[in-house]
Amino acid sequence: MILARVEGNVVATKKNPKMTGSKLLLARPVTVSGADGRELTAGAGTLVATDPLGAGAGDLVLVVQGSSARLAADDKDSPVDAVVIGIVDTVDLQRRELYKAR
Amino acid sequence: MILARVEGNVVATKKNPKMTGSKLLLARPVTVSGADGRELTAGAGTLVATDPLGAGAGDLVLVVQGSSARLAADDKDSPVDAVVIGIVDTVDLQRRELYKAR
Amino acid sequence: MILARVEGNVVATKKNPKMTGSKLLLARPVTVSGADGRELTAGAGTLVATDPLGAGAGDLVLVVQGSSARLAADDKDSPVDAVVIGIVDTVDLQRRELYKAR
Amino acid sequence: MILARVEGNVVATKKNPKMTGSKLLLARPVTVSGADGRELTAGAGTLVATDPLGAGAGDLVLVVQGSSARLAADDKDSPVDAVVIGIVDTVDLQRRELYKAR
Amino acid sequence: MILARVEGNVVATKKNPKMTGSKLLLARPVTVSGADGRELTAGAGTLVATDPLGAGAGDLVLVVQGSSARLAADDKDSPVDAVVIGIVDTVDLQRRELYKAR
Repeated sequence: MILARVEGNVVATKKNPKMTGSKLLLARPVTVSGADGRELTAGAGTLVATDPLGAGAGDLVLVVQGSSARLAADDKDSPVDAVVIGIVDTVDLQRRELYKAR
Repeated sequence: MILARVEGNVVATKKNPKMTGSKLLLARPVTVSGADGRELTAGAGTLVATDPLGAGAGDLVLVVQGSSARLAADDKDSPVDAVVIGIVDTVDLQRRELYKAR
Repeated sequence: MILARVEGNVVATKKNPKMTGSKLLLARPVTVSGADGRELTAGAGTLVATDPLGAGAGDLVLVVQGSSARLAADDKDSPVDAVVIGIVDTVDLQRRELYKAR
Repeated sequence: MILARVEGNVVATKKNPKMTGSKLLLARPVTVSGADGRELTAGAGTLVATDPLGAGAGDLVLVVQGSSARLAADDKDSPVDAVVIGIVDTVDLQRRELYKAR
Repeated sequence: MILARVEGNVVATKKNPKMTGSKLLLARPVTVSGADGRELTAGAGTLVATDPLGAGAGDLVLVVQGSSARLAADDKDSPVDAVVIGIVDTVDLQRRELYKAR
């Protein structure tokens, strides 16, 4: 899984019929960087994930990708490859808190 | 899923028999970039996706990849790993409109 | 799927018994680059794909990856993750021909 | 599989019901670098893996990704794409020991 | 599939019970580089693959990744995503020999 920051929303009215009802979040992967691993920074790429958990802009979320994403979707037959499976409360690095949800 | 811009078409007459009839779109992944996430820019790589929805050059589309792509294909047994599942109307970033289809 | 240029061949006599008879092509992914998307250039990485279609060195081919590749292989149980599913005739970018097979 | 260094933990109380009980490790991929392959250095990206083996911060672990990760999870139906399948004792490079667990 | 150079071994005594008996090779992906495609050079990243074929340090091997890797493993239920499916004898680039096993 990866950590990603929710940045916004994507709307598509013309879409695969099995996607109806799924909220589409625009998210940027987040990585730990720095020689001593001190920061969470925006990683490369942008992804769109469906979200059954109700995350909002700015939230740090846990995203599962690939075939496993279908197991987390509301409809197991929906053609998705990225789904939010957790809204992150805290990220701890060797007992130091790197992130804490507001 | 990823956002991608439709750039053109690929034609292959000698192909796997289960690909017959599928339109092949050439698309470039699109990413949100900038420290304040203000722009949609062309990302790395180029992909070819089949398109059951009728997207055209210049459209921003939502593409599913991997085994889930087969669930979105016209024929579930076609050997595809990237399929268009949505034609994007809008991309909103924290209530600011980053993209709106013409 | 991705576009790739056939560069050569790989021979391995000591191999998985289900690979017997499969021709192994060495191929380099091809991407559209340039701000105005004018060129097909060699992308990053190198892959080896089996080829049931008979492509030759220099050909531009369409390669499917991951579990879908098995659907395109001669033997559905062969342990492959990249297979040629088309030999490209033309790549068109907004009605301009970017590539045409010889 | 990849080698990754355990860096910390991720806590998410609002999550997919099948994730309950899984410990979420934050890990950074590790690569062999240098012209003569002498060092293990932090690679690109950050991933979150579930851990049925009890690894701790600083441990070098073996992580399986994709659909195979589900075979290593405590619950085969949990929507995970990265799971720890080994805690590394040693990494040897041409008979020279590159890493040895404390 | 990808070409990779075997660099060493990974030992993990605390591991998933289905991994018992599998030899774990540390391998670096190899790519063709240069404008005229003349060289095999070490690519990005490092992977760990199981090896049912008996490759040794320095060998160039063919590695299958993802769900297809399980079809090449000794035990089809082992949680692996990278397995050696061939020990390479030669790599030919447009009739010029780029690699030949010793």
